[in-house]
Amino acid sequence: MNASGRTVLFVLGVMLASLSAAMFAPAIADLNDDAQAAHAFFGAGGLGLALGGIMTLMGRGSTKDLSARGAILLTGGAWIVLSVAAAIPLKLSGLDISWTDALFEATSGLTTTGATVLTGLQDMPAGILLWRSILQWIGGVGIIVTAMAIWPLLGIGGMQLFRLESSDKSEKALPRAGQIAGAVGGIYLVLTFLCFLAYLGADMTPFEAINHAMTTVATGGFSTHDGSIGAFVDGGADLVALVFMVLAGLPFVLFLRAAQGRPDLLVFDPQARAFLIVALTASILLTLWLVVHDPHDPAHLPAWRIAAVNGVSVLTGTGYASADFWLWGGGAAGIFFVLMFIGGCAGSTTCSVKIFRYQIAASAMNAYIAQYARPNAVKPIRYRNQTVPDETVRSVLGFFFLFFLTFGISASLLSLIGLDPVTAVSGAATTLANVGPGLGEIIGPAGSFQDLPATAKWVMTANMIIGRLEIMVIFVMLAPRFWRG
Amino acid sequence: MNASGRTVLFVLGVMLASLSAAMFAPAIADLNDDAQAAHAFFGAGGLGLALGGIMTLMGRGSTKDLSARGAILLTGGAWIVLSVAAAIPLKLSGLDISWTDALFEATSGLTTTGATVLTGLQDMPAGILLWRSILQWIGGVGIIVTAMAIWPLLGIGGMQLFRLESSDKSEKALPRAGQIAGAVGGIYLVLTFLCFLAYLGADMTPFEAINHAMTTVATGGFSTHDGSIGAFVDGGADLVALVFMVLAGLPFVLFLRAAQGRPDLLVFDPQARAFLIVALTASILLTLWLVVHDPHDPAHLPAWRIAAVNGVSVLTGTGYASADFWLWGGGAAGIFFVLMFIGGCAGSTTCSVKIFRYQIAASAMNAYIAQYARPNAVKPIRYRNQTVPDETVRSVLGFFFLFFLTFGISASLLSLIGLDPVTAVSGAATTLANVGPGLGEIIGPAGSFQDLPATAKWVMTANMIIGRLEIMVIFVMLAPRFWRG
Ligand SMILES: [K+]
Ligand SMILES: [K+]
Repeated sequence: MNASGRTVLFVLGVMLASLSAAMFAPAIADLNDDAQAAHAFFGAGGLGLALGGIMTLMGRGSTKDLSARGAILLTGGAWIVLSVAAAIPLKLSGLDISWTDALFEATSGLTTTGATVLTGLQDMPAGILLWRSILQWIGGVGIIVTAMAIWPLLGIGGMQLFRLESSDKSEKALPRAGQIAGAVGGIYLVLTFLCFLAYLGADMTPFEAINHAMTTVATGGFSTHDGSIGAFVDGGADLVALVFMVLAGLPFVLFLRAAQGRPDLLVFDPQARAFLIVALTASILLTLWLVVHDPHDPAHLPAWRIAAVNGVSVLTGTGYASADFWLWGGGAAGIFFVLMFIGGCAGSTTCSVKIFRYQIAASAMNAYIAQYARPNAVKPIRYRNQTVPDETVRSVLGFFFLFFLTFGISASLLSLIGLDPVTAVSGAATTLANVGPGLGEIIGPAGSFQDLPATAKWVMTANMIIGRLEIMVIFVMLAPRFWRG
Repeated sequence: MNASGRTVLFVLGVMLASLSAAMFAPAIADLNDDAQAAHAFFGAGGLGLALGGIMTLMGRGSTKDLSARGAILLTGGAWIVLSVAAAIPLKLSGLDISWTDALFEATSGLTTTGATVLTGLQDMPAGILLWRSILQWIGGVGIIVTAMAIWPLLGIGGMQLFRLESSDKSEKALPRAGQIAGAVGGIYLVLTFLCFLAYLGADMTPFEAINHAMTTVATGGFSTHDGSIGAFVDGGADLVALVFMVLAGLPFVLFLRAAQGRPDLLVFDPQARAFLIVALTASILLTLWLVVHDPHDPAHLPAWRIAAVNGVSVLTGTGYASADFWLWGGGAAGIFFVLMFIGGCAGSTTCSVKIFRYQIAASAMNAYIAQYARPNAVKPIRYRNQTVPDETVRSVLGFFFLFFLTFGISASLLSLIGLDPVTAVSGAATTLANVGPGLGEIIGPAGSFQDLPATAKWVMTANMIIGRLEIMVIFVMLAPRFWRG
């Protein structure tokens, strides 16, 4: 094994051991209520700790240097290995689910997708619910660190724009990841704690509040209730979710900058501003739609409130629902479908295409048009007061290509498996964009992924991983030449 | 007016006059049967001739030099002006249709889309049917000449790959267009004549054969019968269509090369080969689907035959249907939906994304992956034994971005207008890709665009023009800066 392979093994081992240690939390939560679940979490946790420890030992003495290949292998490997490990206690906990379902649910957690195959959540053992929330919380911070420390160095989908120092090399990814994890981890903890307090204030029980706080800042969307955030509107928890979903959609580095005396950037950073404008526009459009069409809302909330909560939930890919927005009609469905393809800011916990890529693409199209208006004036593509290198533009446009190609292929596969068009197309989109609920009666906000065929669940599970890793990572790992090199 | 503007006016005038002169053919066809239709075609033809003549006079003395702006204005203007002119006799002919419908039908003709708002075709005045076919035939040859002579010089969506001489400048577009029109026009006539003979042999009447020959080589898809090509299967006309749709999907320049002694290129040119492989794969997949699911086929044709005819029809964007393939079920619908986004070869009459763009994008992704496997070996992107410049790759990827953006926006608009998801999404795709029929019961192969709201027809009409002009041309023309310059 070369130095880089050793490092990958070492870090994966540390991650697996940490995730396994986290299984003791649900184990303790279930100790009195559900012996089988507690056993499952203790057992899987112990096994994972042992295996993670062995991997760490095998990788010991590594230089911590990481080649580009190693970085790809590490990020791809982490989400796959940890999803499998996280599925084990779910399967063994006494829930009546298949291995397919356990892996779907665990992957949906770690990728912060939030699509669920479980129903009757409010009657589940506390440990199961806690585990789902913990998975999203870990997945959320994991993706921020990866997106800030590793992908800019690899140049994944234009992320090279977010290199903190222009001289960075991928070899230095790990030390940087450590520094960033330290800084971001603090913010993440503070945001989670504030969100927890706010949910408490909105009449949630402490258990409900901690679970929803974790899945809100992670823009994950798992709830402790089949009714999602809609079950908690009486105390205003949906408005708490709205505020923290918006915060979680912002680049986390801006919170650091805010703490350093630049709170204005939270609104005026180009990416943050565009994100806030999109969120506002979506809320207004959906409000107008609701006012004009007036679909029946059993909760009798003001139109702006259900429009903003559900719109921002889908835009940020959180996936909470405070109403069954599938019943709002075709036009609203169209808006929600488009929102799935937007996402929040790079360097946040959100997924999907993300705002900055649309900004770069728009700038590129603008430069293209200018070339016909004034053929002799070459207009550079600019972003955040810097000229964007051609390679970065190509990388962004390539991301769009692969994203929509994967969407098309997976939607077709789901059709071939036999899903109806609305379920197939929205199911492909919502899993690839890590949103959570789809459209239609089966997987819509009031439905569940439970009754889908197992093959459809596999396609969707793959989509969640592919989408969470910005498409490219998995495509690179699927190439035979990647393994030869 | 500057020299380039004068040239645009001059050429548009010639085109308008030519189209108007062509109106005399349907006028004569209807002379005995339908006086009102004959009057409409004579009147509109005379008016168009006069107006075209005036434009030609106003643009006289032009140098025939064309700036990049002029070339954009000319191609965009041609399809818009001619569609409006072509709609006039349809509206005045005594058909009971609105101006919206007349413009939809005329645009659907000139863009070779083939979506129709008319029913009861088999009982229509011959002149109306002939006019629809003539529009597609003109639109088909028009697009080949534009795609070979003008877009390579402008670098629209990566078409710079198809520059015949690397030193070409856009100023020389018009003389080149003339040469190419001469060479391609001969092939086009020969193909149309052969197709006409083959249809005659398949038991069509001479009138049916000439109409279908024109709409086959143009991959347009208008028929003289509500049952489309399915109404003519007894004599085997669907198989004639199959052969000529495949031929019409090949780059027309290859027929020239074949005549110069290289018939092998018709199969072994990289783009032609990939197109043939896709056509074969689609036919096989659909055949398998039919064999496994065995939906009821009232015509009792072998599975391979309806699979190949309808699959190739949608792949090439012709849009004939020999069966109501919407009834085949979700998986088949998924395949047809994907085929809409592929299209034939560049330099053919087909539309949509086209094969070569997928080849360039695949090559770019391959180079991207290679960079992670062997970071120090820079792998150039190659196509047809040449290195593809970065600018061309960006141009191709930008095309994908704009194509899918336009698809998403138009599908959303159609949803907002109130169409159901299947109609909205497939309607956006089939008009943008100039295929013709959509999916679902309303606009599927057995349906019609007749009963859609007028606003939906306007969105679709715009889509047809945008799609036919490779997206970019209309986006450039919509930019305020294009008009300032
Ligand atoms: K989510
Ligand atoms: K067509």
